[in-house]
Amino acid sequence: MSPDQAIKPQQTTMGSQKLPFATDYMYLCHPAILKRMTEISDTAYMGYGFDEICLTAKEKIRQICKSPEADVHFITGGTQTNVVAIDALLQSYEGVLSTITGHIAVHEAGAVEATGHKVITLPEHNGKISVTDVENYLKTLYVDETSEHQVQPGMLYITHPTEVGTLYSLNELTEISRMCHHHHLKLFLDGARLGYGLAATETDITLPDIAKLCDAFYIGGTKVGALIGEALVFPRPDTVSHFFSQIKRHGFHLAKGWIIGLQFDTLFTDNLYFKISRHTIELAEKLRQGIQNAGLKFFIDSPTNQQFVICSAEQTQKLRENVDFEIWENLADGSKAIRFCVSWHTTEEQIDQLVQLLKETASSTL
Amino acid sequence: MSPDQAIKPQQTTMGSQKLPFATDYMYLCHPAILKRMTEISDTAYMGYGFDEICLTAKEKIRQICKSPEADVHFITGGTQTNVVAIDALLQSYEGVLSTITGHIAVHEAGAVEATGHKVITLPEHNGKISVTDVENYLKTLYVDETSEHQVQPGMLYITHPTEVGTLYSLNELTEISRMCHHHHLKLFLDGARLGYGLAATETDITLPDIAKLCDAFYIGGTKVGALIGEALVFPRPDTVSHFFSQIKRHGFHLAKGWIIGLQFDTLFTDNLYFKISRHTIELAEKLRQGIQNAGLKFFIDSPTNQQFVICSAEQTQKLRENVDFEIWENLADGSKAIRFCVSWHTTEEQIDQLVQLLKETASSTL
Amino acid sequence: MSPDQAIKPQQTTMGSQKLPFATDYMYLCHPAILKRMTEISDTAYMGYGFDEICLTAKEKIRQICKSPEADVHFITGGTQTNVVAIDALLQSYEGVLSTITGHIAVHEAGAVEATGHKVITLPEHNGKISVTDVENYLKTLYVDETSEHQVQPGMLYITHPTEVGTLYSLNELTEISRMCHHHHLKLFLDGARLGYGLAATETDITLPDIAKLCDAFYIGGTKVGALIGEALVFPRPDTVSHFFSQIKRHGFHLAKGWIIGLQFDTLFTDNLYFKISRHTIELAEKLRQGIQNAGLKFFIDSPTNQQFVICSAEQTQKLRENVDFEIWENLADGSKAIRFCVSWHTTEEQIDQLVQLLKETASSTL
Amino acid sequence: MSPDQAIKPQQTTMGSQKLPFATDYMYLCHPAILKRMTEISDTAYMGYGFDEICLTAKEKIRQICKSPEADVHFITGGTQTNVVAIDALLQSYEGVLSTITGHIAVHEAGAVEATGHKVITLPEHNGKISVTDVENYLKTLYVDETSEHQVQPGMLYITHPTEVGTLYSLNELTEISRMCHHHHLKLFLDGARLGYGLAATETDITLPDIAKLCDAFYIGGTKVGALIGEALVFPRPDTVSHFFSQIKRHGFHLAKGWIIGLQFDTLFTDNLYFKISRHTIELAEKLRQGIQNAGLKFFIDSPTNQQFVICSAEQTQKLRENVDFEIWENLADGSKAIRFCVSWHTTEEQIDQLVQLLKETASSTL
Repeated sequence: MSPDQAIKPQQTTMGSQKLPFATDYMYLCHPAILKRMTEISDTAYMGYGFDEICLTAKEKIRQICKSPEADVHFITGGTQTNVVAIDALLQSYEGVLSTITGHIAVHEAGAVEATGHKVITLPEHNGKISVTDVENYLKTLYVDETSEHQVQPGMLYITHPTEVGTLYSLNELTEISRMCHHHHLKLFLDGARLGYGLAATETDITLPDIAKLCDAFYIGGTKVGALIGEALVFPRPDTVSHFFSQIKRHGFHLAKGWIIGLQFDTLFTDNLYFKISRHTIELAEKLRQGIQNAGLKFFIDSPTNQQFVICSAEQTQKLRENVDFEIWENLADGSKAIRFCVSWHTTEEQIDQLVQLLKETASSTL
Repeated sequence: MSPDQAIKPQQTTMGSQKLPFATDYMYLCHPAILKRMTEISDTAYMGYGFDEICLTAKEKIRQICKSPEADVHFITGGTQTNVVAIDALLQSYEGVLSTITGHIAVHEAGAVEATGHKVITLPEHNGKISVTDVENYLKTLYVDETSEHQVQPGMLYITHPTEVGTLYSLNELTEISRMCHHHHLKLFLDGARLGYGLAATETDITLPDIAKLCDAFYIGGTKVGALIGEALVFPRPDTVSHFFSQIKRHGFHLAKGWIIGLQFDTLFTDNLYFKISRHTIELAEKLRQGIQNAGLKFFIDSPTNQQFVICSAEQTQKLRENVDFEIWENLADGSKAIRFCVSWHTTEEQIDQLVQLLKETASSTL
Repeated sequence: MSPDQAIKPQQTTMGSQKLPFATDYMYLCHPAILKRMTEISDTAYMGYGFDEICLTAKEKIRQICKSPEADVHFITGGTQTNVVAIDALLQSYEGVLSTITGHIAVHEAGAVEATGHKVITLPEHNGKISVTDVENYLKTLYVDETSEHQVQPGMLYITHPTEVGTLYSLNELTEISRMCHHHHLKLFLDGARLGYGLAATETDITLPDIAKLCDAFYIGGTKVGALIGEALVFPRPDTVSHFFSQIKRHGFHLAKGWIIGLQFDTLFTDNLYFKISRHTIELAEKLRQGIQNAGLKFFIDSPTNQQFVICSAEQTQKLRENVDFEIWENLADGSKAIRFCVSWHTTEEQIDQLVQLLKETASSTL
Repeated sequence: MSPDQAIKPQQTTMGSQKLPFATDYMYLCHPAILKRMTEISDTAYMGYGFDEICLTAKEKIRQICKSPEADVHFITGGTQTNVVAIDALLQSYEGVLSTITGHIAVHEAGAVEATGHKVITLPEHNGKISVTDVENYLKTLYVDETSEHQVQPGMLYITHPTEVGTLYSLNELTEISRMCHHHHLKLFLDGARLGYGLAATETDITLPDIAKLCDAFYIGGTKVGALIGEALVFPRPDTVSHFFSQIKRHGFHLAKGWIIGLQFDTLFTDNLYFKISRHTIELAEKLRQGIQNAGLKFFIDSPTNQQFVICSAEQTQKLRENVDFEIWENLADGSKAIRFCVSWHTTEEQIDQLVQLLKETASSTL
């Protein structure tokens, strides 16, 4: 399976005339952010997040999450946020449960293990964890006379949307949360693409729901219009201690902390985060319709900004001439599961062009 | 699956009249070792392995391995030996490949991850790794555009005998070694029960073969008659640097290093290691015959000292009254896969009694 | 001693009318960078540094360093750069030598130790390491019969300019380099403020000198006009392996890698990096002259952008009303060593105002 | 300074006719232990400490410590015990305070740092920590605006007797304990030679005192008559969680756990631990008197089993012909500080011979 960060070292996209559907982090940032950066570029700020922009941004996040007591921290990127949150929530001897396709299990080069914690993998079901699988795992572990010879599980890591763009329902997340807390597992939600999940037409989960049900989660910025940065939220205060020092110990502090604060302050002004996410979803749905109209099949049924479609090898090659996308999986019959990433920067025109190309290549390669 | 170290905290065996087939480390040590310890108890030795007994023992191991240049190190126990060897052979960013049932993957409480290395798990086939599986894994990894986002594999860890008592053939081990070195993977063989593997009737692998084919391996003492200790062998000199300091950094040095030297010096005098291993195998084969005669089925076909047999739940319960053994796995039909561990301390009389009990309980619970 | 990052959580500077001499990372970035970011904001780029801007920026750095074979990597911040370079250059069991005031020894919250490496501290002399101290340390270590019970030193970490703004001469650096390589120590130079060192009036060290003498070094961006980012240089190829994966394992990759590439591409176009550094030094020298004229004494004789002056407690308090600065050390006689940080953003007018305030407060508090 | 484990790889002591005063771990174990091992060598025991001998031994330790609720764990050696206790008592981001000469700071090859924790060093005063030094360190740390950029101290590590044989008084230990708990520091006492401290003529500290004042401590076995092993005591229950799994994660479990249990069960039967410690102290005092009578000066005033005396280089060389000892420090005037280690195995006759040699070499080298 070819993940998100798939990038051929040999290629560069700059100046490419190809339609940009490779990832959702191909563009600098939303214009509103660039404008704001320009405005404050001659103002001096205190470093390390002790500035007013960060304070304001954190307060906005607390309000939108209906978590007035939440601890909010701005971290530069997703892997960093996963590592520092997991390491802070776990005891040194504990491991973290994840689906076998979870980002921490596969595509972070062992960053979690580098902090001494085992990633304990369980099956995935459309990218999601199953409560039954976790409970069976725990049952086996603790019935086993040797449970203390095994890694003690301390938390469950989930992604929402998942690596394949699927979503938990509120019922599912509630059940996961209940199960975790029953078994004294912390629950951490990786929201690298959270905006696209919250804006999905069919979702019934809100930020306050997530804040209520999780011990920690992050609101992704990098893939949802920010220049850099993720907002890590511990909805309940005192969840972690000396967290500033913990971030520093991992090397994850940005000296000019207000840069990330500014991203989220801008994204959470006038609902910008939700507007650009909704814009993206609407285009993804249009793409979805176009894929169906072209008579192509979906590899996975995704309600968010990543769309996975099955194409013949020939069609895939033809598409490559005009479109940047990922080959997600080489299927047994020789065809390909390919991924198109719609983003906040995508235009309706680009969707129309992509749909047109899908139709043309589908018919020409029959 | 219930591993080796399975021990209920609630129970103690002392004074138990039950037949001791729970593990192969239930008795102190071979009488020859105790005798030797008594003889040297009033002699002063230098600490940390710089004594004459260690020097002699190392030389004996070099000779028996036909590896005159080998670096030999005495370490207290198996997990320690695995950890220090793996950490020394890997670069900090590399991971170790293992079957999913490998000891390091399951029953060492994350000791390898605690040193920052991911254990990358692959399927097991009768406890063994398959060259095809490793090569497919590598092919996928390196074809993948994101291979550098994944943990870089640096070595293959195998056990011989495996966790379920099976053995690699010389052909298989040769092929594994060739594949590893072709792909720049170090090959490390965990020989916690190596004596029982070398003494197996059907094996064609010798210590010199192992020394030739592996980058590192250890000759297990704890489970083969020693009080404590394993002998870690790097057949080629300069495989590792500052290894004394590396052992110390893990906390694994024994101040009275000559104690472990004495174990191996005794075990490799007059072929004692092979004699007691062969004695064990002969009794295991007798047990094997008895199991067949009792009409019971094997769970796994093991040519070494661990014998796995399928018993009904009722029979298992009856056996429990008179025998110490492990329940290895609860089978889907309600029956049990149980493990009997024969050891250097087992007597022919004990085998006869166990076989008799197997027959009686088999017939009475039909 | 109060370091660089000293920031009271209670305060924010925004909107402050105080003269900004607290640190050299109080402003967003040089206008040329902001302009460039605006220009490329609608161009799609490949992630993780595989874009053309990064390629161009790396080439410029190779040329300016006269190191055509150098490996150049862009990392978000200074602590990250230290951690990933040190961890990559050391064997897992090795430690890093540093002065007792080195940034890694004091102000990175144990980030180096978090990767398992001891920071071995030696005395500082005006912020600098002494070759004699290192050699005496090594002599003691290796004469000692227990050297293998101690951490094996694998590298020397130095800062240039040092934490207190001082500089090594070319002779000193050459001698350090010779000593390091004689003793098989890697030499790593932390150049968080390298621009200010290279632009100092009295220095005789150039970037090609550093590239020739060190195994690794970094050219600081964050404190020298960049938005974010440091350029880590390994002058000789193949110094490190799988470094992309190592960066990822620490969580230090920026998905939008071109952002940092753009910083350095801009800074190394038309000598911008050296121009703004020289501008800063000229203002620092003006401040220096003003301090002398005000009859104040220097705490440390610094030829770079940090100026350390001794003020009475009363004067310090008066200055606080109009100036942001750091109290570096509380001296025994009740007076204070205070630090003024000049930066690329400082104006001549601000220097004039500061000098005026120094004079006024000096006379009024006599 | 030449520590305890000082051993020249080139030498072996076996068969040496020299008087054995090099260390206190040169002999196998007390005869009572060897006898006991012989007696139980044909009894089967459960592994990993779940045997009756361990249970009994733990109960004896609880009684002698007057800590009926204490958690007691048997670990193979001193470095292991330090590592597992420190790692379990600290949060992942915390460091441990120690004198600059503390064993963990110097002679464990970075074993504490290998678990990610910084060893923060403070001055030593006759081997001891000073409450004032710790409080000054904390005052500076927390007054400092950058305290969160530094490692958070989580515990104080002390040795008793210290590395140079000195002892804390009950008043001192009480004051240290009060200070630690006032500042939320855990207090851990390394008792590698605790027996010799408790048996010292002038001490006023008892095991119950230590149990009352410390969060954790260990009763050294290796240097006080045991074959191997240390008894780690957490006087208050629930001080640590999942400690079995934590020990396993470090690789520190002995499969045949009863071996260490047997050591302590024997040592704490009929006061053997105190008898052999007292025997040692009486001989050390006799040696002490002999040193004075020979007109030699002490390097350090030690009331325990290690005696440090200043000899000329010539005398040192003469003594070497007949005595095994350590050179502790090369003094500025060319003379040597040498250490004689008296142990449970030392005889009165050996002391007489050593004193005689000291007298002879002192007079002949005047």
